[in-house]
Amino acid sequence: MKNTLFQHGTMQMLVEGLLDGTLPLAELLKHGDIGIGTGDGVDGELVILDGIGYKIDTTGKAVKLPPDFKVTYADVSFADYHDFKSYQDIELEEMLSQVLTANNAQNRFLAVKTNGVFQKIRTRSSKKSQKPYPSLGEIAQNQVEFEAENITGTMISYYTPKVFQGVGVSGFHNHFLADNLSVGGHVLAATMKDVTVSVQLLDNLQLHLPVDSQDFLDADLTDITKLDQVISKSE
Amino acid sequence: MKNTLFQHGTMQMLVEGLLDGTLPLAELLKHGDIGIGTGDGVDGELVILDGIGYKIDTTGKAVKLPPDFKVTYADVSFADYHDFKSYQDIELEEMLSQVLTANNAQNRFLAVKTNGVFQKIRTRSSKKSQKPYPSLGEIAQNQVEFEAENITGTMISYYTPKVFQGVGVSGFHNHFLADNLSVGGHVLAATMKDVTVSVQLLDNLQLHLPVDSQDFLDADLTDITKLDQVISKSE
Repeated sequence: MKNTLFQHGTMQMLVEGLLDGTLPLAELLKHGDIGIGTGDGVDGELVILDGIGYKIDTTGKAVKLPPDFKVTYADVSFADYHDFKSYQDIELEEMLSQVLTANNAQNRFLAVKTNGVFQKIRTRSSKKSQKPYPSLGEIAQNQVEFEAENITGTMISYYTPKVFQGVGVSGFHNHFLADNLSVGGHVLAATMKDVTVSVQLLDNLQLHLPVDSQDFLDADLTDITKLDQVISKSE
Repeated sequence: MKNTLFQHGTMQMLVEGLLDGTLPLAELLKHGDIGIGTGDGVDGELVILDGIGYKIDTTGKAVKLPPDFKVTYADVSFADYHDFKSYQDIELEEMLSQVLTANNAQNRFLAVKTNGVFQKIRTRSSKKSQKPYPSLGEIAQNQVEFEAENITGTMISYYTPKVFQGVGVSGFHNHFLADNLSVGGHVLAATMKDVTVSVQLLDNLQLHLPVDSQDFLDADLTDITKLDQVISKSE
């Protein structure tokens, strides 16, 4: 459905080290043609744009993914954005805050697409971990950061209301892909030079659990405070 | 979909006093033929069985609902249970604990249907409140409790994993309907005399937000600790 956010997996699951890829990209694409996510063993940061899956690897560059690439966690939707506003010379947080308020979207899901020239952008990606998976602290050490200036591209953002903390991450979650695929990843900071923002309000969350993973079914997922602890360390 | 729990609204919303009925029963029934919920202004406790909606009113009796009855919060699914086990002379909590463990369902959604003779059952319903809605404390005073012995009926239960606390209520949520409609409601306690339990594992949550309610869109829903406080008082 056009107004549905489809999510595979939960953030809590990642925090608990359940990092197996459990959904082939081809299956994920049945539920949306735009989105963000991560792969098996936190294998890079994913961007889905126009129905094509890309992985930002540890060089910071984006590569097209095959249909059988295994996804651990993803948010996707069917793109049906409407034009919202253009912005010049504005910081990421300030821009997203304005978009959220102007769309009165604090209690619902919101998809935001930002196209244009980014004056400066800082992103992150991860190296794939092997099973048995290392601790989150060690995975954090496998993260690499990238910076680019005056780069043209698309930032895909989803906003999740507070009550879904743990299911997803509350607030905005943003991934970037340069038009020339030279850089991308999970967005840590950005200054927009000249961008056009389009938005899509989402009325439904369709959450799919990785029920074919025995590790997921057997895990102790009763401590729901861990995500908050991890977020403060990884920002 | 057979393996999807459809939910309208969130528990957090109820805790914050957003009690308007926002979905006609006829619309809800498009997403399931069995379920539980509550109506406009906490207008009774709802049971949906074989595609028919019932309200347990303040007399404790069940009445059939019209298609335009407005639902505030509901969980529904399409019944596709399989036989699990029969139980004799067992307490509600012990039985549900055994069902959860035997189905290894602690990290997923589980629908449970319990049919047969209940030796003793204690239920609760509520009187409809008018807008502006009273505080939760006052609404608690509008609750009425019922007891029945040796009653034949159906208990409909949904299990929600811990990470969804606030979206729903984590753990089991149980509503009862007597075959002769003489009693029903939100189950507070029960002893089963001779019942048959059937189960249905649910892989997906489809959550629909009441986005047509301006009160919902405008509410401050950032304090996600309130539900835990309320649950401890209302049990």
